[in-house]
Amino acid sequence: GVAELDHDRARRRGYPEAVFCEGKSPAQLRAIATALLERHRGAPAEQVPRTLFTRADAERAAAVLEVLPDAFHDPEARLLAWPAAPPEATGGLVVVACAGTSDLPVAREAELTARYLGRRTELVIDVGVAGLHRILARTGTLRAAAAVVVVAGMDGALPGVVAGLVSAPVVAVPTSVGYGAAFEGLAPLLTMLNACAPGVGVVNIDNGYGGGHLAAQIAAPRRD
Amino acid sequence: GVAELDHDRARRRGYPEAVFCEGKSPAQLRAIATALLERHRGAPAEQVPRTLFTRADAERAAAVLEVLPDAFHDPEARLLAWPAAPPEATGGLVVVACAGTSDLPVAREAELTARYLGRRTELVIDVGVAGLHRILARTGTLRAAAAVVVVAGMDGALPGVVAGLVSAPVVAVPTSVGYGAAFEGLAPLLTMLNACAPGVGVVNIDNGYGGGHLAAQIAAPRRD
Amino acid sequence: GVAELDHDRARRRGYPEAVFCEGKSPAQLRAIATALLERHRGAPAEQVPRTLFTRADAERAAAVLEVLPDAFHDPEARLLAWPAAPPEATGGLVVVACAGTSDLPVAREAELTARYLGRRTELVIDVGVAGLHRILARTGTLRAAAAVVVVAGMDGALPGVVAGLVSAPVVAVPTSVGYGAAFEGLAPLLTMLNACAPGVGVVNIDNGYGGGHLAAQIAAPRRD
Amino acid sequence: GVAELDHDRARRRGYPEAVFCEGKSPAQLRAIATALLERHRGAPAEQVPRTLFTRADAERAAAVLEVLPDAFHDPEARLLAWPAAPPEATGGLVVVACAGTSDLPVAREAELTARYLGRRTELVIDVGVAGLHRILARTGTLRAAAAVVVVAGMDGALPGVVAGLVSAPVVAVPTSVGYGAAFEGLAPLLTMLNACAPGVGVVNIDNGYGGGHLAAQIAAPRRD
Amino acid sequence: GVAELDHDRARRRGYPEAVFCEGKSPAQLRAIATALLERHRGAPAEQVPRTLFTRADAERAAAVLEVLPDAFHDPEARLLAWPAAPPEATGGLVVVACAGTSDLPVAREAELTARYLGRRTELVIDVGVAGLHRILARTGTLRAAAAVVVVAGMDGALPGVVAGLVSAPVVAVPTSVGYGAAFEGLAPLLTMLNACAPGVGVVNIDNGYGGGHLAAQIAAPRRD
Amino acid sequence: GVAELDHDRARRRGYPEAVFCEGKSPAQLRAIATALLERHRGAPAEQVPRTLFTRADAERAAAVLEVLPDAFHDPEARLLAWPAAPPEATGGLVVVACAGTSDLPVAREAELTARYLGRRTELVIDVGVAGLHRILARTGTLRAAAAVVVVAGMDGALPGVVAGLVSAPVVAVPTSVGYGAAFEGLAPLLTMLNACAPGVGVVNIDNGYGGGHLAAQIAAPRRD
Amino acid sequence: GVAELDHDRARRRGYPEAVFCEGKSPAQLRAIATALLERHRGAPAEQVPRTLFTRADAERAAAVLEVLPDAFHDPEARLLAWPAAPPEATGGLVVVACAGTSDLPVAREAELTARYLGRRTELVIDVGVAGLHRILARTGTLRAAAAVVVVAGMDGALPGVVAGLVSAPVVAVPTSVGYGAAFEGLAPLLTMLNACAPGVGVVNIDNGYGGGHLAAQIAAPRRD
Amino acid sequence: GVAELDHDRARRRGYPEAVFCEGKSPAQLRAIATALLERHRGAPAEQVPRTLFTRADAERAAAVLEVLPDAFHDPEARLLAWPAAPPEATGGLVVVACAGTSDLPVAREAELTARYLGRRTELVIDVGVAGLHRILARTGTLRAAAAVVVVAGMDGALPGVVAGLVSAPVVAVPTSVGYGAAFEGLAPLLTMLNACAPGVGVVNIDNGYGGGHLAAQIAAPRRD
Ligand SMILES: Nc1ncnc2c1ncn2[C@@H]1O[C@H](COP(=O)(O)O)[C@@H](O)[C@H]1O
Ligand SMILES: Nc1ncnc2c1ncn2[C@@H]1O[C@H](COP(=O)(O)O)[C@@H](O)[C@H]1O
Ligand SMILES: Nc1ncnc2c1ncn2[C@@H]1O[C@H](COP(=O)(O)O)[C@@H](O)[C@H]1O
Ligand SMILES: Nc1ncnc2c1ncn2[C@@H]1O[C@H](COP(=O)(O)O)[C@@H](O)[C@H]1O
Ligand SMILES: [Mg+2]
Ligand SMILES: [Mg+2]
Ligand SMILES: [Mg+2]
Ligand SMILES: [Mg+2]
Ligand SMILES: [Mg+2]
Ligand SMILES: [Mg+2]
Ligand SMILES: [Mg+2]
Ligand SMILES: [Mg+2]
Repeated sequence: GVAELDHDRARRRGYPEAVFCEGKSPAQLRAIATALLERHRGAPAEQVPRTLFTRADAERAAAVLEVLPDAFHDPEARLLAWPAAPPEATGGLVVVACAGTSDLPVAREAELTARYLGRRTELVIDVGVAGLHRILARTGTLRAAAAVVVVAGMDGALPGVVAGLVSAPVVAVPTSVGYGAAFEGLAPLLTMLNACAPGVGVVNIDNGYGGGHLAAQIAAPRRD
Repeated sequence: GVAELDHDRARRRGYPEAVFCEGKSPAQLRAIATALLERHRGAPAEQVPRTLFTRADAERAAAVLEVLPDAFHDPEARLLAWPAAPPEATGGLVVVACAGTSDLPVAREAELTARYLGRRTELVIDVGVAGLHRILARTGTLRAAAAVVVVAGMDGALPGVVAGLVSAPVVAVPTSVGYGAAFEGLAPLLTMLNACAPGVGVVNIDNGYGGGHLAAQIAAPRRD
Repeated sequence: GVAELDHDRARRRGYPEAVFCEGKSPAQLRAIATALLERHRGAPAEQVPRTLFTRADAERAAAVLEVLPDAFHDPEARLLAWPAAPPEATGGLVVVACAGTSDLPVAREAELTARYLGRRTELVIDVGVAGLHRILARTGTLRAAAAVVVVAGMDGALPGVVAGLVSAPVVAVPTSVGYGAAFEGLAPLLTMLNACAPGVGVVNIDNGYGGGHLAAQIAAPRRD
Repeated sequence: GVAELDHDRARRRGYPEAVFCEGKSPAQLRAIATALLERHRGAPAEQVPRTLFTRADAERAAAVLEVLPDAFHDPEARLLAWPAAPPEATGGLVVVACAGTSDLPVAREAELTARYLGRRTELVIDVGVAGLHRILARTGTLRAAAAVVVVAGMDGALPGVVAGLVSAPVVAVPTSVGYGAAFEGLAPLLTMLNACAPGVGVVNIDNGYGGGHLAAQIAAPRRD
Repeated sequence: GVAELDHDRARRRGYPEAVFCEGKSPAQLRAIATALLERHRGAPAEQVPRTLFTRADAERAAAVLEVLPDAFHDPEARLLAWPAAPPEATGGLVVVACAGTSDLPVAREAELTARYLGRRTELVIDVGVAGLHRILARTGTLRAAAAVVVVAGMDGALPGVVAGLVSAPVVAVPTSVGYGAAFEGLAPLLTMLNACAPGVGVVNIDNGYGGGHLAAQIAAPRRD
Repeated sequence: GVAELDHDRARRRGYPEAVFCEGKSPAQLRAIATALLERHRGAPAEQVPRTLFTRADAERAAAVLEVLPDAFHDPEARLLAWPAAPPEATGGLVVVACAGTSDLPVAREAELTARYLGRRTELVIDVGVAGLHRILARTGTLRAAAAVVVVAGMDGALPGVVAGLVSAPVVAVPTSVGYGAAFEGLAPLLTMLNACAPGVGVVNIDNGYGGGHLAAQIAAPRRD
Repeated sequence: GVAELDHDRARRRGYPEAVFCEGKSPAQLRAIATALLERHRGAPAEQVPRTLFTRADAERAAAVLEVLPDAFHDPEARLLAWPAAPPEATGGLVVVACAGTSDLPVAREAELTARYLGRRTELVIDVGVAGLHRILARTGTLRAAAAVVVVAGMDGALPGVVAGLVSAPVVAVPTSVGYGAAFEGLAPLLTMLNACAPGVGVVNIDNGYGGGHLAAQIAAPRRD
Repeated sequence: GVAELDHDRARRRGYPEAVFCEGKSPAQLRAIATALLERHRGAPAEQVPRTLFTRADAERAAAVLEVLPDAFHDPEARLLAWPAAPPEATGGLVVVACAGTSDLPVAREAELTARYLGRRTELVIDVGVAGLHRILARTGTLRAAAAVVVVAGMDGALPGVVAGLVSAPVVAVPTSVGYGAAFEGLAPLLTMLNACAPGVGVVNIDNGYGGGHLAAQIAAPRRD
């Protein structure tokens, strides 16, 4: 086989392994999807852990859907989920906020990931710091969250501002939105790592999946 | 005055502002400490929010202690806390693990920060991936945590390995330990941002304070 | 001689050349100061263009003061001015705001430069975005300015936020305050170049002199 | 909706928000254009604030023109403006100078932006420092400006040379013109940040919009 | 001629020069292949040193096959070998391990190179550190090797972990698999250079050829 | 007009300005070529200074040839020259050596530039340091040169080795040949700047034009 | 304790863990040395695995020698070994070559490491590529080696040249010798990663320990 | 011995090897100086090739002078020469120009190197582009040169401007003068590599020795 999926991960960590589609051929993805189908053949859908296929362009998404035609597919977020129905929501609320319209694909990937890991989610868009009244108007929503994911490109200033407003942890996702001295996301990445307000954990550039995953873990039901 | 402390922060976020001592003169620190003393004069110590002074070298620590002689001081972590007694612990356990002995000052800063924000803490040292049996032997401790802080320099590989073993969020703190192509902590920073296991939130290089703060927020008592 | 001062600059540009003291020996600085003294011997002080000596550490400042004992000297800003009295103020107001206490030396250098080029100035300190209410409370002052200089290290988010609040141009000065992924000021520099709000012109890291100079030009009396 | 335009910006700052078209889909741009049309339906064109659509490639420009067929469109500058007529010019003159022919698209974006924000503009082209007589021959034009925008790629030396010749502020726009060690505009960006003549404010690489905006603010009618 | 192949290399070093196809035109490759054919015309295949053509895309591979239709061709590894049969294996075993499925092309290039230089090889796939049990389960295979090639992108943590488990040298090959802060392979490259376990020699990003070559040299039959 | 060619350059420097075609549209190039044609209409070809058009891809070359059908065109070097005949050669010999076949386009651009500026030239190819005997065998040719241009990608080691063998100046041209940690030519650029043998002057990555120009100046007839 | 030495490493890998002294306090080093002494008290010296203390400055070396006065100490290499006698040599010869006199400390660290891991060693100094005859004169010595360590700063060209001359693997150690664009060893590091001759494995900048260790493993007695 | 001086270099190249003092201990330098003295004992001074000792701080210079008390020493340039008298000048004039007073040490190192290699030299100081009239006033001197060395820090714009004025080759030496985004000389280095005027060869940051050496070779007496 071309892949050795870490099936033990769901047992060990509570969350199944996702399939990163970039750099895999459609043929390899069909093989992986088939193995998944075989493994859970006959099991009731609600007992099958939801497997995500991330960063799937049109061609790769089609390959997965060939084998798993009933999978959920969001082309903007480049994400598929199988089985298609998210698990019943538990734990705290995950709020995903993004600075600009162009950050939406990454924000949506974060939101869907958190939802498929079992959290309630809410999306807040186009609230960048150039017009502060927009984010201030959403303080109520932000304070209702157990974890806030903040997605921003260009100057990446939004996560630090949000962290200064709430007591919940902020997961910061820099994006490659911008040009020139944004250096493909390096600028917002550095901004977020240097946020003056403590309480910001940063993930990789454009890593909506990782941001949603971390937020889902933070907001998971707890048993201290 | 030379500073406008964000006294509202404790109300807004539940955690008071810390004083970053680097780049402040001893005279400025004495002024800030005096203002703090004035503000809380007469209040019972246990009701005063604990203010941390971070990255205080010997000279700056002495300036703070001149005004607040009863403050707690850990020279290795370069940290002071006033009032000296940590608040009573609530919420989940914060485990701080570090890869090597040279990472200890940062790990200790993280641990003390989490403790002064009100969490129980435990420290695990010298468990780098070159001898995997060491971290595997501590799996029980790691799984007991509501948040794990992992501190590492050089290759920075430990947080990704830990994230693959536990379901709690991992806060990764890269350190400037190493030389040459470690580029003052850039290498472990990039490693952590690219960790193959999801569930890792990264903070700034050598930012034990930020790592401990984020972990304390994650492990805070929750009311979903 | 070791230097060929651009004496024509005041005529050509309206502002005299400043002396950059870093990398010059005390002996060279004494020679330059002596040449200046010679050149203006006998002229009434108010007609002599104010020459600034910038980035002068204690040893270099002493060398200048040996020759020009009546010069103005601000050790925190590492700046000297001769003749000591600033010119009478004309044009619009220059407001200098800084994010944290550690940014003060650079902010002060900017303020003094603008003042010695003939502008009224006002200084606003410790108003970083981690506690937004602080900068919002100063909106009135900011809107009174013909040019605003914003000085910030770490995440460098303040200039973009200020630019979103005012119609005057913002001159952004990144500082080397911070550590780790602040990379000696690279992080705030990139943030400022990518500010989402237009209207931000950026100068070199720690370049309070350049920031104050540009602001003084922007706020100069105009004759459209 | 996919966007929350900062309509308040014109009131707060005197200049309306522009729409950054890169990273937005044609469908999103049609939606934004439609919202704009709705908002101002019935208002006389000269009272409607001019909205710019920047960095619009052919496909995106077509989407905007579908909804706003009477918009102004400059394909070289990749810019649209609606309503099409610039406001009546006030304030001082904005001169835009560029070092080489290849810098023209960015220079033109700067010029059009300044014009649509209400300034008189003049364009000076192909006056790079390799043949100094060319820029020296234009000293008269440069000295007539209230703000000079200087656009240059490769070595980016022109803004510093211009700043040494005039008393008005210089807005420097580095471009990605060049190859190899120009590193997509990094080289001229650094040159401009280190310009030996003070009075240079730098914006992002290829950011003609930002350069023109800042110059328009500097040259705005003043009421000190 | 367009090339001056280092035919002496096989005599000097024991290994013939390979042809790097990137940046050569199909016409140039046909010329090189023809020269090779001429040179060995009439010699028995098993006495002809195997020449590798590396990094050959479809078009370039076709050009080589036009002249040498009986060459071996692996499109995934982008490699051709002529004559097609590998030499008889001598020396120790070379094990090639890769962290993820997307690293397979590089891993396969390494394996084939080692085989065509005369070594026995074995391939171990998808054993990244996020699920440690996978690599631990292969300890036996790893310890049987005279040289281990470890191929990994993203965090590049696998070589350091493997080096901690075996006594044979580890050849680490970083790949450009990943995105964002992986910076086209820079992140795993730095990780590997900073591996905490000694015994890791690093080659260029995506350099499967170089990794396989070095491993073949290490595992060569020895005559101390 | 879109360009203001520096026609004075030939008088001032002895060498006419070249036209850099990248980033210019075919229409702009036609306009420039037409202006050139007009300017020299009626003059005898041998008295017209040769104008080079550099970095011209197929489409741009066609645009130039439309106006100047009798121009010389070398597609590999992406260079055109008009009038087509090089001037009679004077001064010393320029030898251009390149490390690999893939460096040929840049080497050829250097050679043609030197020839059109009036020098005798000779090309030495595929003499990289991995097989030292190749360059050592050409020592005679190298020592006959008044200037040596050395073109190399990847490790860029050849110029330093050549400089150690000859007394003439070496002009080093790094190329973007290579991959991974060659970082588009950064690696050979740094190597050349750090060459242990003095006597190496470096130009921009892939700048065959600049390398040939500098060599032609060095080898120009002299009148001390 | 402050450290958890990986005592199992000698069993697992055949080579004991070394103590990296940088970033450890003298007190911590005394503790570690004492633990070592305890562990092997009573064992015959030749049966005790040699522990190396690397990168020990004068103060740290003194701390180790206080506890282990009979340890071997080489101040130039900043290395200590205990017990002091190297093990009897087995396996192949390790040759360490360095480009310049300033690279000697790193070269010596490599040589001593290989010797204390049980190999015969030979040192060749000051044979940089600026005077090729020097390294060519040592070809015999180089070809006698089972592994060659090549240490170089500045342009770092020597390892690639050596790899082209021998069939044994080359371990390349870049050093921070040089200035300016050597960027603390980055330039030779990149050169070595891009060496045109295959067969070069690179370790961290100034990592003589790692280079010697890898060479000792390569040259270890083999049992294919 | 600690060094193997390349004595053959003077024969091979016409210029003797220099001794790079940084990173060599005083003891090593005494040994090298003694070897030199031995080698030439009894020879008439004017027949001994001049050996330069470069980048020698006070302590290292003293070590050399102990053995060679009659050597020439310029502390500002950190250079020694032995025998002390420069050879009789031949070939063309070398002009060294520097942008600012702080660049003087590097400019002086270049000038002295060229002089000790046998050229006439002239030094032009403080002629940066912020006041263009200064360099324009020296056009006559510049045009008299067979080679011009231009030394500049900060924006590094001077070499490109000079190259546009003269027909002789320009050797550009970037310096580490400046701060912030000058990044220790990186900014002027990039500027010089991207100079719009052809005819600029760049050497390492602060490499006055290399710049003077290359200029001396360019201006050497020629025999085409
Ligand atoms: N060409 C441009 N470069 C930089 N910023 C721009 C540009 N065009 C528009 N903007 C700004 O980008 C923001 C819009 O981002 P978005 O919400 O994604 O449309 C606005 O605040 C604009 O002021
Ligand atoms: N060690 C630290 N690292 C990063 N941020 C810190 C640290 N200590 C305090 N801070 C933050 O820095 C800010 C204080 O900056 P200042 O106004 O300069 O004192 C506060 O918002 C703190 O939350
Ligand atoms: N291939 C090239 N690389 C670098 N500079 C060049 C090249 N070709 C022409 N130039 C220079 O670029 C300038 C022309 O730029 P432009 O005004 O955009 O045509 C001239 O000063 C030429 O000397
Ligand atoms: N200041 C300098 N900058 C760069 N290279 C130098 C300098 N001084 C001497 N060198 C060269 O460095 C080499 C000597 O290195 P080493 O063997 O360490 O003495 C010789 O080839 C010199 O040509
Ligand atoms: Mg928006
Ligand atoms: Mg340890
Ligand atoms: Mg503060
Ligand atoms: Mg031009
Ligand atoms: Mg996998
Ligand atoms: Mg070749
Ligand atoms: Mg030497
Ligand atoms: Mg000056």
